Amino acid sequence: MTVPHLVKEPDPQADRARLFAKAGEISADLTRRGAQLDAEGKPPLEEIDRLKQEGLLAALHPAGIGGGGLDWVDGLRLVRILARGESSIGQLLGYHFVNSQYVYWAADDPDKAWTLGAETVEKRLYWGAAVNPRDPGLTLTRSGDHYLLNGRKTFSTGAHVSDRINASAVFGETVASLVLPTDRPGYVANDDWDNIGQRLSDSGSVDFRDFPVYESDFLLPLAAKDAAPPVLATFNTPLIQLVFVNFYLGTAEGALAAATDYVRTTTRPWITSGVEKASEDPYILERIGEFRAALKASAALADAAAITVQSALARGRSVTARERGEAAIEAYEAKVNATHVALDVTGRVFELTGARSTASHYRFDRYWRNVRTHTLHDPVFYKAREVGDFVLNGRVPEPSLYS
Amino acid sequence: MTVPHLVKEPDPQADRARLFAKAGEISADLTRRGAQLDAEGKPPLEEIDRLKQEGLLAALHPAGIGGGGLDWVDGLRLVRILARGESSIGQLLGYHFVNSQYVYWAADDPDKAWTLGAETVEKRLYWGAAVNPRDPGLTLTRSGDHYLLNGRKTFSTGAHVSDRINASAVFGETVASLVLPTDRPGYVANDDWDNIGQRLSDSGSVDFRDFPVYESDFLLPLAAKDAAPPVLATFNTPLIQLVFVNFYLGTAEGALAAATDYVRTTTRPWITSGVEKASEDPYILERIGEFRAALKASAALADAAAITVQSALARGRSVTARERGEAAIEAYEAKVNATHVALDVTGRVFELTGARSTASHYRFDRYWRNVRTHTLHDPVFYKAREVGDFVLNGRVPEPSLYS
Amino acid sequence: MTVPHLVKEPDPQADRARLFAKAGEISADLTRRGAQLDAEGKPPLEEIDRLKQEGLLAALHPAGIGGGGLDWVDGLRLVRILARGESSIGQLLGYHFVNSQYVYWAADDPDKAWTLGAETVEKRLYWGAAVNPRDPGLTLTRSGDHYLLNGRKTFSTGAHVSDRINASAVFGETVASLVLPTDRPGYVANDDWDNIGQRLSDSGSVDFRDFPVYESDFLLPLAAKDAAPPVLATFNTPLIQLVFVNFYLGTAEGALAAATDYVRTTTRPWITSGVEKASEDPYILERIGEFRAALKASAALADAAAITVQSALARGRSVTARERGEAAIEAYEAKVNATHVALDVTGRVFELTGARSTASHYRFDRYWRNVRTHTLHDPVFYKAREVGDFVLNGRVPEPSLYS
Amino acid sequence: MTVPHLVKEPDPQADRARLFAKAGEISADLTRRGAQLDAEGKPPLEEIDRLKQEGLLAALHPAGIGGGGLDWVDGLRLVRILARGESSIGQLLGYHFVNSQYVYWAADDPDKAWTLGAETVEKRLYWGAAVNPRDPGLTLTRSGDHYLLNGRKTFSTGAHVSDRINASAVFGETVASLVLPTDRPGYVANDDWDNIGQRLSDSGSVDFRDFPVYESDFLLPLAAKDAAPPVLATFNTPLIQLVFVNFYLGTAEGALAAATDYVRTTTRPWITSGVEKASEDPYILERIGEFRAALKASAALADAAAITVQSALARGRSVTARERGEAAIEAYEAKVNATHVALDVTGRVFELTGARSTASHYRFDRYWRNVRTHTLHDPVFYKAREVGDFVLNGRVPEPSLYS
Repeated sequence: MTVPHLVKEPDPQADRARLFAKAGEISADLTRRGAQLDAEGKPPLEEIDRLKQEGLLAALHPAGIGGGGLDWVDGLRLVRILARGESSIGQLLGYHFVNSQYVYWAADDPDKAWTLGAETVEKRLYWGAAVNPRDPGLTLTRSGDHYLLNGRKTFSTGAHVSDRINASAVFGETVASLVLPTDRPGYVANDDWDNIGQRLSDSGSVDFRDFPVYESDFLLPLAAKDAAPPVLATFNTPLIQLVFVNFYLGTAEGALAAATDYVRTTTRPWITSGVEKASEDPYILERIGEFRAALKASAALADAAAITVQSALARGRSVTARERGEAAIEAYEAKVNATHVALDVTGRVFELTGARSTASHYRFDRYWRNVRTHTLHDPVFYKAREVGDFVLNGRVPEPSLYS
Repeated sequence: MTVPHLVKEPDPQADRARLFAKAGEISADLTRRGAQLDAEGKPPLEEIDRLKQEGLLAALHPAGIGGGGLDWVDGLRLVRILARGESSIGQLLGYHFVNSQYVYWAADDPDKAWTLGAETVEKRLYWGAAVNPRDPGLTLTRSGDHYLLNGRKTFSTGAHVSDRINASAVFGETVASLVLPTDRPGYVANDDWDNIGQRLSDSGSVDFRDFPVYESDFLLPLAAKDAAPPVLATFNTPLIQLVFVNFYLGTAEGALAAATDYVRTTTRPWITSGVEKASEDPYILERIGEFRAALKASAALADAAAITVQSALARGRSVTARERGEAAIEAYEAKVNATHVALDVTGRVFELTGARSTASHYRFDRYWRNVRTHTLHDPVFYKAREVGDFVLNGRVPEPSLYS
Repeated sequence: MTVPHLVKEPDPQADRARLFAKAGEISADLTRRGAQLDAEGKPPLEEIDRLKQEGLLAALHPAGIGGGGLDWVDGLRLVRILARGESSIGQLLGYHFVNSQYVYWAADDPDKAWTLGAETVEKRLYWGAAVNPRDPGLTLTRSGDHYLLNGRKTFSTGAHVSDRINASAVFGETVASLVLPTDRPGYVANDDWDNIGQRLSDSGSVDFRDFPVYESDFLLPLAAKDAAPPVLATFNTPLIQLVFVNFYLGTAEGALAAATDYVRTTTRPWITSGVEKASEDPYILERIGEFRAALKASAALADAAAITVQSALARGRSVTARERGEAAIEAYEAKVNATHVALDVTGRVFELTGARSTASHYRFDRYWRNVRTHTLHDPVFYKAREVGDFVLNGRVPEPSLYS
Repeated sequence: MTVPHLVKEPDPQADRARLFAKAGEISADLTRRGAQLDAEGKPPLEEIDRLKQEGLLAALHPAGIGGGGLDWVDGLRLVRILARGESSIGQLLGYHFVNSQYVYWAADDPDKAWTLGAETVEKRLYWGAAVNPRDPGLTLTRSGDHYLLNGRKTFSTGAHVSDRINASAVFGETVASLVLPTDRPGYVANDDWDNIGQRLSDSGSVDFRDFPVYESDFLLPLAAKDAAPPVLATFNTPLIQLVFVNFYLGTAEGALAAATDYVRTTTRPWITSGVEKASEDPYILERIGEFRAALKASAALADAAAITVQSALARGRSVTARERGEAAIEAYEAKVNATHVALDVTGRVFELTGARSTASHYRFDRYWRNVRTHTLHDPVFYKAREVGDFVLNGRVPEPSLYS
């Protein structure tokens, strides 16, 4: 396969600026439609399509194959920007970034990764995954010259919108790492995602029913079940955790923006406040200041952690387990902080907006429901514990899909 | 009108025990159906009917007219018990208590109050109100030998289930205090209550359209617009605030009970926790302990404040404005504390139950949505300010429908 | 020994009122001298003497032997009142209550307890203890017709002011429970209590050096090292924990009272506040309201828990381990809550008083230092865990000197 | 005066690295002596002398005159590093930075500023200030060919260690901006700084008694009392606030480091913890993780705000009031966040270290006392309000010595 013949952006800065501007526009549009989208809670086919059209799905792919050439620091900021408009869309962009970049870190064969990347850019593919480690795995069996994949994965974010899926499956005593297209028979995205938050995240279960798998679908040679992956291939965890951080914070920033807008336009001054406009109320002003300060601090750490992880990642195959671990710890510090801040702000913006803002049609509770739902992905007290273990005992976390 | 001829309960303690037992049974039943009721969000006609059947609506009326003879300390506990099962039902019972007791405090003529009370007990009437002070008022005009009432009141809790309504209306330069039956033509309870919480509280708007009003509907003689009510008639505010306190706490207690039940039966131990059951997880145990301690403290203050307010109320017409104010302050201290505790606990029980508990069918977010919605009734920072003003400057709040 | 011949108070209510009035007076006096006393940090000989003179040390002893006849609910309130003036004096009164009441619960022989109680009332004795369970114990050896006690106990609160001391010592394979007078040779209270808080609590180490012990000093027959005490004898732990609760809260109440007094008299309004007096500042008023609400809730639970424990205690030798455990849990709920509230309020009163209130001569930090120091007695997270284990798993704590 | 003839550092990066290394060394040494220094609470003459010897006082002066050439981003980090060892030393370095850089922003005549800067570097001068705006001012009167300065300034940080002092004084209807040497007769630094925290900050009062002032001491021509300073001259406030931020955070980082060290070496595992070392206790690990995450977030915002303010400052005299205001807001966001985090961490490290760590000789409470004392400089709720007013109403703060 040849590198796709694209008209290259001559100016990386201009391309970067364009991607950020587009993300801003899409986010603003999502803000306007957010209540409606949350009410419907459908897989966001149109919204993902728009990300495709604007080149956002290719933002992190190398400029040399037509990608945006951005690093993770920028990529995570794009996630945050989109989440300001709609939390699930931020999540979906971030998950795609991790899933579609994973092949560069994990593939033994650089050509394999390059080819997959180029195809992704050219065809504007969305990448999902079916790797929830708390589920029993998928099973691969041989069938003539190919294989059949069977089993179910719950919580497969982007199940309906994915064009490619990273999957792992048990094959006898070995494990297969696969990259699968979703347009083959036997891929069934179920309509069973119905949770109180991240309602557009399309995180239902996926069934593989005699799904045909070919040798070319293997990202890696078959490996022993307990084989440790190379260090570089374990960067998906700190990076997905930073995706979480950034869409939590974006969601909370969106909540605060919506609330201040409502205060300016709609909230009535309290009868004993002595002020003529709610926007002059001393308690409302103080709270906004507090929320803003907390969000800014958390976002500053998110950015700093992104730089640290990007920097470790940039060492490529020479990165050590210790370096990965130390970078991951900074990401997990950001996770701990963002979890608290995002829950607090999204839950308390109602103190600004007041009683009438609880009318269902505003759906102002969606910000809290979104953050509340996803911050349970893995318990924050165990993340805090990992950080404490590093600070106190100098230990870095054992790499896993959670740590 | 004669006092209704009822078979009197011979043993007040037995009657009290029966009412508490019934409240417990109903609450347990509501717990089972809570998710479903919240999803439907309809006026709780059946549920209020059950309160009628079991005598709960009459719990605070004098035993001498067939009521339960309980004081407010017990009445507020009944509210808390019901709210454990379903927050809105607790709210509705409490609102009814205040609205139907109001006539004893406000009526100039004791016979009037007694007659209304006796009819309430006999016919098992539910009392609502249309007195939201932040709305423009209702207007009364003369029409032959009677009057016509016109206007709209938003947020009329129990609009569909009310048999009687306390209303105030402007009549020229005066204000009329009315007790109105809702089965006359011209009373229209609109179906416009659709908020994120307290979804069964039936708190939509009410229209009066040429609603006929007769002299016998007047609770009081016409009064000047700025006439101060007697002190006793202003106890509705500290008592309705204690109703809030108790259904907030009941809701949070219900959330914690549901969450611990879920942990025991459903939550999986975290993969790095080193424990075999989630119910042995050190962080889950600690958080439950913290939530419980906070709830117990807040409930202890709620009970203490109820005793204080009941005690001031028992002074009857000799109670002074200062005594009322000091009692109200204790109620508002309870309000401030319960607001924080109930929001914190209902928002954080998810830390116990974990990611899968966010499935919509559990509707575990309803506890937080309920508390979040109603705690905005009046801003908690202004309640804290009133308490501070009492502690620092010795001032009691100016009586109003908020203070 | 005969019951002391005292002129009995004819009216228990009058005696109770007198004790509370005296406690209030002493507390007010301590408030005035608190900064000075804290600066000196000496064993409070005069202050304990005043408690003796006013009969406060005898408040919980039976009226029949000349004691105040108060129950623990009142006794703990006296602790709180004194702690408002000076935290250590509250602590010392509470410790004495537990140590001097312990003989009623633990002694096999009622006459023994009665005799010790009567002597305590008559001679106005202060009781301490040397039982820190995290220390290696004291050792008893035989010496002719008596015994010799040797060893050191750290953290023996009231070391210099104690007239009697409860002590436990190892004697071969057995353990001796002793009640020892401190005026024998060989009792050495060291001057080594120098901590950042509770500086008057006289909690240094005690050495026993060939201290003579006689058969009459034995509270109980020698027991096997692992013998479980009777349930009643384990009430010292929930009660000492309630002593903690009440002097933490009293200290915080004292801090808030001192701070509001300072705001009224000394704090200057902030330059951009727009108010003429600091006592009208909206943020100061709100914070005072918040602190007050939190303190009132915690004190309400402290009182409720005291009633529960008193009630279990009143069952005497028929009280079951389960009943003791359930009562203890309520005390520990109060402990968890009071710890947080007292730390928060004592640390944050400075937000009210402002920059100049940090001048050393005010010693306004002593409230926080006092609470900070003693709340580390046993880790609050393990208390929360015990409560959680009860709520979630129905377990009551294993009785110990901490649980 | 000529520019001092110094051997210039040929390599700015090396010089920068050397300054950071020296700051680290000094900080480590202060950590070792911190308890002792706090106990003594004397003006830190030796410590400031060491800063002079190592060139730290000159760190922000231009390399062209022999200074370190660092920008504020680095300068504020140096403050943080020193505060880890001893809070007051961090404060004093930061105050000096602002006071000695002020002349570059405020002087009309660039030569004046340059000359003062060069002398400062050459003679290693420490700069203080006497400008507390809540005090009545100093008064200047004419006396023959010069002036006499009289009056008192409270809270003049670095009173005893200052070589130069920025002062403002009233002269008739005008205000004089002065740079004064402290070695003239009539400068009296009083020994009246005795506060609960920042005990080495040497922040007592200063008297000027017929202190002679000459024309050459005027930094600026006499100005009308209500004359607004140029925008650039108002950067002292956001920068001094960032100094606060950084020494608060440094102090808290120092507290956490000291506490983790203590846990590793000294804290005993809790008896019911089931772990063999306190450093494996799940609650201790979690808390350390939480504290670390909060500190990292706050420090990340501190750094980001420093970049923003430095960047506005770098616009020099072309910087607009709006640009200054927006940059200041980011500094104040950092102030709000750092205040909360530093108070929380310094107050709660005792939860890690346990009861015995309250022994006075550790003086572990000094971290909290330090932060508690200085965070009252100006009320944090008004800072939050300013931030809220910017977010909600788009207003930037009116420049003052507080905003």
